[in-house]
Amino acid sequence: MRPPVELLDFLKREDLYLIATHRSPDGDAIGSAVALALILDALGKQAAVFCQDAVPEQYRFLPESSRVHTPDTIAAAGIVLEECGNLVLVDCNDLHRVTRDEDLQRRFGYRNAVVIDHHATPAPFGTLRWIEPEAAATGMMILAIADALGMRLTPAAAMNLYAAIVVDTGNFRFENTSADVLYAAARLAEAGANPTLVCREFYESWSASRLALFGRFLGTLDMRGAVAVAVVTRQMLDETGTVPDDTETFVEFLKINRDADVAMLIRELEPDHYKISLRAKGTVDVAAIARQFGGGGHRNAAGCEVRGTLDSVRQRVLAQITK
Amino acid sequence: MRPPVELLDFLKREDLYLIATHRSPDGDAIGSAVALALILDALGKQAAVFCQDAVPEQYRFLPESSRVHTPDTIAAAGIVLEECGNLVLVDCNDLHRVTRDEDLQRRFGYRNAVVIDHHATPAPFGTLRWIEPEAAATGMMILAIADALGMRLTPAAAMNLYAAIVVDTGNFRFENTSADVLYAAARLAEAGANPTLVCREFYESWSASRLALFGRFLGTLDMRGAVAVAVVTRQMLDETGTVPDDTETFVEFLKINRDADVAMLIRELEPDHYKISLRAKGTVDVAAIARQFGGGGHRNAAGCEVRGTLDSVRQRVLAQITK
Repeated sequence: MRPPVELLDFLKREDLYLIATHRSPDGDAIGSAVALALILDALGKQAAVFCQDAVPEQYRFLPESSRVHTPDTIAAAGIVLEECGNLVLVDCNDLHRVTRDEDLQRRFGYRNAVVIDHHATPAPFGTLRWIEPEAAATGMMILAIADALGMRLTPAAAMNLYAAIVVDTGNFRFENTSADVLYAAARLAEAGANPTLVCREFYESWSASRLALFGRFLGTLDMRGAVAVAVVTRQMLDETGTVPDDTETFVEFLKINRDADVAMLIRELEPDHYKISLRAKGTVDVAAIARQFGGGGHRNAAGCEVRGTLDSVRQRVLAQITK
Repeated sequence: MRPPVELLDFLKREDLYLIATHRSPDGDAIGSAVALALILDALGKQAAVFCQDAVPEQYRFLPESSRVHTPDTIAAAGIVLEECGNLVLVDCNDLHRVTRDEDLQRRFGYRNAVVIDHHATPAPFGTLRWIEPEAAATGMMILAIADALGMRLTPAAAMNLYAAIVVDTGNFRFENTSADVLYAAARLAEAGANPTLVCREFYESWSASRLALFGRFLGTLDMRGAVAVAVVTRQMLDETGTVPDDTETFVEFLKINRDADVAMLIRELEPDHYKISLRAKGTVDVAAIARQFGGGGHRNAAGCEVRGTLDSVRQRVLAQITK
């Protein structure tokens, strides 16, 4: 995997960047955006990072994650959206994935728009687009940029990219875990990433309330044929004192049952409005299912939002899976 | 890490081997023993594999795992313990770890006894001992032997070694996950190991009854200061129709709580006789605690057996941890 020459030339030539990633950021979004900012720093450029939503708690241990600014903090950081120079979308490929707020979208005043992403969803946004659906994580693409520029990663950049890869490969469990991914992880560990620290922060830092929510969530587990279905309602969040971010990785757990080909987490966003997270073990293409409901993702990990009662939402998605 | 020249010379020189690993075998035991047998095959040698206990269900997908013979099957396989040629202990360093049956111990008729292990526990057994406490897994040592012999691994051997490393690093989560471990994993994936398949078999092949046991187990979770304690009784196994092997990795889950420095699983072996599994996140040396009860292990993962009532066993181990 090699970045396009135009992208490398662009990064060498331009001086002012605003790196933006998608709302509800995950580890690949945060890690890739921050690592790219650190690489641009090292090239002597000026780079700021923008995200609609604040860095989720489990990613705040990442070095330099405080560089990620939200609409609330960006002005105080001296960053003027209207004059952001070059906009670089990372881990997403359209401004709508950055923010749904159309007023905010219009405020981005950029000379050029670049896209660096591994999501295949087609969108026309950007003048310079590098999209690699085969990349296990956008973090792999950022590493390839550093390599192509002949740069040695700092430990902080290595840590962010390691975290990006861990999140998008399920810590080397998903189908996208190739020898290349493991070589990249090895090189990042050599450059100063700490695998144990990353895993501890991601997988061993649950609060007691999150554990309580997990117990409630497990209690809803229901096998519908080869689909393991579980639900998290707003009431469950309220009663356990948890927030939506606390449900991250819950859906992965549903795959633990040997009889489950597909895992489905239904999370209530508001009354009659649900977020569906889908995971597949191999044969079912859950991205295709998510797309039918206006969502998207990867073959083995996808999501969408569906409106209706819990029962009807569950039934409609199940019907698509078993079709 | 380089194997001793004497060991390499020995493997080149001798022709007949019995590879034996420890009772209650884990993935490092099975994977290392089978991979070594495959390496010796490729050298044109004759190698059999012995284990007191049958290969646990979750390791039976490993290629060539049917080569592991128990006392019940070994005679039918045409292997004569009394004339086993050269005995090679793998992932253990004493015949007592292979079997407690002293009659069986006496039956091993070997010309030379070799030890290849990463457990530091000192034992005088063997004429040629290679012990590397710094190795993350015995599988890393077997890979080093193949490298030193200039051998290309078969996909089957790569798969076994990958599984060995995954089990002993908690799929690259434990403190022993170094850049070297990740480079080894990358090379093994390149040689034909399938990371996703290994993880699916280890972590996503639970039976419904095992999930039911897990729910019961979670229900016993109790924080005693910074120690997360949970219990599996024989009654819980009986009522859910599960076996002791089904509790594997349960103790890892106890580390999920951010307030837990130590995880302790107490599993009833028989009335007033418990197996204690200990895991630490960093500061506490649980091997030192296990040794006080006649057990052993690694700094972050150790075990022992303690006799007494459940309450007294729990109290005595907790007292050592918090001392």
